[in-house]
Amino acid sequence: MTRPYVVTNVTIIDAVRIIPEGFIKVKDKKIVAVGEGMPPPEDGWDRIDGQKKTLMPGLVNTHGHTPMTLLRGISDDLPLERWLNEKIWPAEAALGDESAAAGTALAIVEMIRSGTTCFADMYHLNWEGTAVLTEESGMKASLARGMIAFGSKQAQREKLKTAIDYAKSCQTSTSGRLRGAIFPHAPYTCPLEFLRDAKAKAEEAFLPFHIHIAETRKEVNEHEAKHGLPPVAHLLEEGILTEGSLAVHAVHISDSEITGLKENGVHVSHNPQSNLKLGSGIAPLPQLLNQHIPVSLGTDSAASNNTLDLFDEMRQAAMVHKGLQEEANATDAQTIVKMATVNGANTLGFSGAGLIAEGYDADFIFINSDQAHMIPRINYGTLVYSASGRDVTDVFVEGKPLMRDGRLLTVDEEKIRHEAMDTSARLFAGR
Amino acid sequence: MTRPYVVTNVTIIDAVRIIPEGFIKVKDKKIVAVGEGMPPPEDGWDRIDGQKKTLMPGLVNTHGHTPMTLLRGISDDLPLERWLNEKIWPAEAALGDESAAAGTALAIVEMIRSGTTCFADMYHLNWEGTAVLTEESGMKASLARGMIAFGSKQAQREKLKTAIDYAKSCQTSTSGRLRGAIFPHAPYTCPLEFLRDAKAKAEEAFLPFHIHIAETRKEVNEHEAKHGLPPVAHLLEEGILTEGSLAVHAVHISDSEITGLKENGVHVSHNPQSNLKLGSGIAPLPQLLNQHIPVSLGTDSAASNNTLDLFDEMRQAAMVHKGLQEEANATDAQTIVKMATVNGANTLGFSGAGLIAEGYDADFIFINSDQAHMIPRINYGTLVYSASGRDVTDVFVEGKPLMRDGRLLTVDEEKIRHEAMDTSARLFAGR
Repeated sequence: MTRPYVVTNVTIIDAVRIIPEGFIKVKDKKIVAVGEGMPPPEDGWDRIDGQKKTLMPGLVNTHGHTPMTLLRGISDDLPLERWLNEKIWPAEAALGDESAAAGTALAIVEMIRSGTTCFADMYHLNWEGTAVLTEESGMKASLARGMIAFGSKQAQREKLKTAIDYAKSCQTSTSGRLRGAIFPHAPYTCPLEFLRDAKAKAEEAFLPFHIHIAETRKEVNEHEAKHGLPPVAHLLEEGILTEGSLAVHAVHISDSEITGLKENGVHVSHNPQSNLKLGSGIAPLPQLLNQHIPVSLGTDSAASNNTLDLFDEMRQAAMVHKGLQEEANATDAQTIVKMATVNGANTLGFSGAGLIAEGYDADFIFINSDQAHMIPRINYGTLVYSASGRDVTDVFVEGKPLMRDGRLLTVDEEKIRHEAMDTSARLFAGR
Repeated sequence: MTRPYVVTNVTIIDAVRIIPEGFIKVKDKKIVAVGEGMPPPEDGWDRIDGQKKTLMPGLVNTHGHTPMTLLRGISDDLPLERWLNEKIWPAEAALGDESAAAGTALAIVEMIRSGTTCFADMYHLNWEGTAVLTEESGMKASLARGMIAFGSKQAQREKLKTAIDYAKSCQTSTSGRLRGAIFPHAPYTCPLEFLRDAKAKAEEAFLPFHIHIAETRKEVNEHEAKHGLPPVAHLLEEGILTEGSLAVHAVHISDSEITGLKENGVHVSHNPQSNLKLGSGIAPLPQLLNQHIPVSLGTDSAASNNTLDLFDEMRQAAMVHKGLQEEANATDAQTIVKMATVNGANTLGFSGAGLIAEGYDADFIFINSDQAHMIPRINYGTLVYSASGRDVTDVFVEGKPLMRDGRLLTVDEEKIRHEAMDTSARLFAGR
């Protein structure tokens, strides 16, 4: 696919418009034209027939921990604290860099298959390996070395230094498909001094700052008891959450904290399935959207979801508030598509991606819309309420195909599946 | 498949047990043996290799309106009343028996593809045609003629008579794969006198009684204003909801009504996605389960869901209460599997189906569990939190294959998809 090409006969949907029958032209990694009907033939261009397909932007997953894909299903139906203390942390203690890589590779297969072209990842093992695997796969990612700062000051300093170095190296990757971020785990796992230091170092290096925050009621109550303010209000006051920072989860937040997020230009990664499944709660999505806060979608890890399928995440994000508020228009499908595409791309620092528009990166997917469960009409609702990641047939990033007709082109899927099974069997027999 | 056969090398999961590597033997429509490991070879038996597959009971959908599949996506993000008055009822006015049949056929394709072997259906058009299509497809169903009783007494009597005759004819179908039910639409669309009469006639004919009830807060408030009691309490007092009756939705019900349902042996069809999507509310599933009320799952129509995929329904049923109660163990995956299989079969009158056990009907499906999003472990959580209807590869009812390796064997899928598209384009151009 080094020649330019045109995709024809295809339904095009992005966050701003639907073209029932249109085309896009792709050249030098970019979408160079989008239109209705059939374009005039052009010499030297290849042609991809999109008949019976729907073309949409690749999905963007703004929160996850790819190595934990190996822990999928190890601990269902347990509350967050027991989930962490009894199951996840003991299991993680058995992971090393190599097994973490097996999990990341599996996550990459699952993400490409389900139409994700760009993801955020944070983990405390094998972070450099994750960059390599991502580059090889052809995906885009915002990557961070995980930091839980319970150790000595010296250990904390070293952790932060490697995190900064790693993030910088991602920012300057030769492919240009990586970004780096500074991601201290959470206010309850990192002392305030560490968060201040991490924020200062991130600013010095022009690196974005991500943090899990206000995930559970317990976290919020304990933070408030200790610091006199709930965590979001506190980190806003401290200047730790600032313009472009990413607040992950933000489940238990007050109206005044929502206003604070808005006034300070903070982004939110909404992870509804993980929040529900762990019993953490239900984030105030409609209120965040009403304030025009840039909210995107994350799956969190497959250990608390249990998939990395952003179509499932879209459906859940759209569904729950309708029932909760007893208002069917509490959320709308078009806004949800925006969250899963262009909002996510902007949040992760890929501002030229997430729309099917001239000048945007050619990050797009095909969905097979000629299936019983999507008939008889294609609209935003089809993507949010009917489609699944399993309906994705083709995935392109910067014009390059990562999957065609259900076949992965940049990774050895069968080998990756076997390694994941073997690694899991070896480390977690009986779990 | 007239010879008996054995399925080997397969992971078996039903509501009561998991066999990591086992077999089942199928003869004369029944499962005649289930075991671990490999069975001894037997002369004259065929063999199906289940390697890399998970075998589970066919799913049972206890509430729906198949002709409305044509209305999928016609009206998203609108509240129930506007959804009905502005979109659905005008669209339904354009439907006739033939277009209703196109919707039912499409629903059957979607249901088989997503692993449903048995469903409930109620509609006011083409009910006899639905019985024919169901028989031809090889599925099982509990069928009812839809009754909204706003007309004259004479019209009401005639409606009820055809409903009784139709339900009786289903009960005595030659295949034995049909049941009939009496299903007046709801307390707010049928006068009390009509409900009493329908119940009396149903009892005379030994027919089950189904009704939509307590779906929205508005319905409950208006019913209480008119009759002095909320609808469930009222219909229990009237003796209209009795042993084996099916209360569909039951979203807005009090603790004393839950006790009433329990004491009277009433079943509940839980339709979480429809209830969420229409903004109707969230039914008290954990409280119903705590009282050991037989709760099953329904998708409702694809116009309010927007799929007929019971895997999606399982996930939603399991997810929402964890977040709402902030308790990750508010629901558990094994119970959800029970709701979607054996509870559903019992509720619809197929008491010998819904388990993978000796003597049970051979209604089972295969899931391709050798996929990235289901690796690395197979358990109840895999079915509820990771799997999708799109993962189903094979479907058998009473031992007969309806789908093998993703190919439908009893219906002409392509023709059905085309007819659905054409019918929709003709009736609803621009909608």
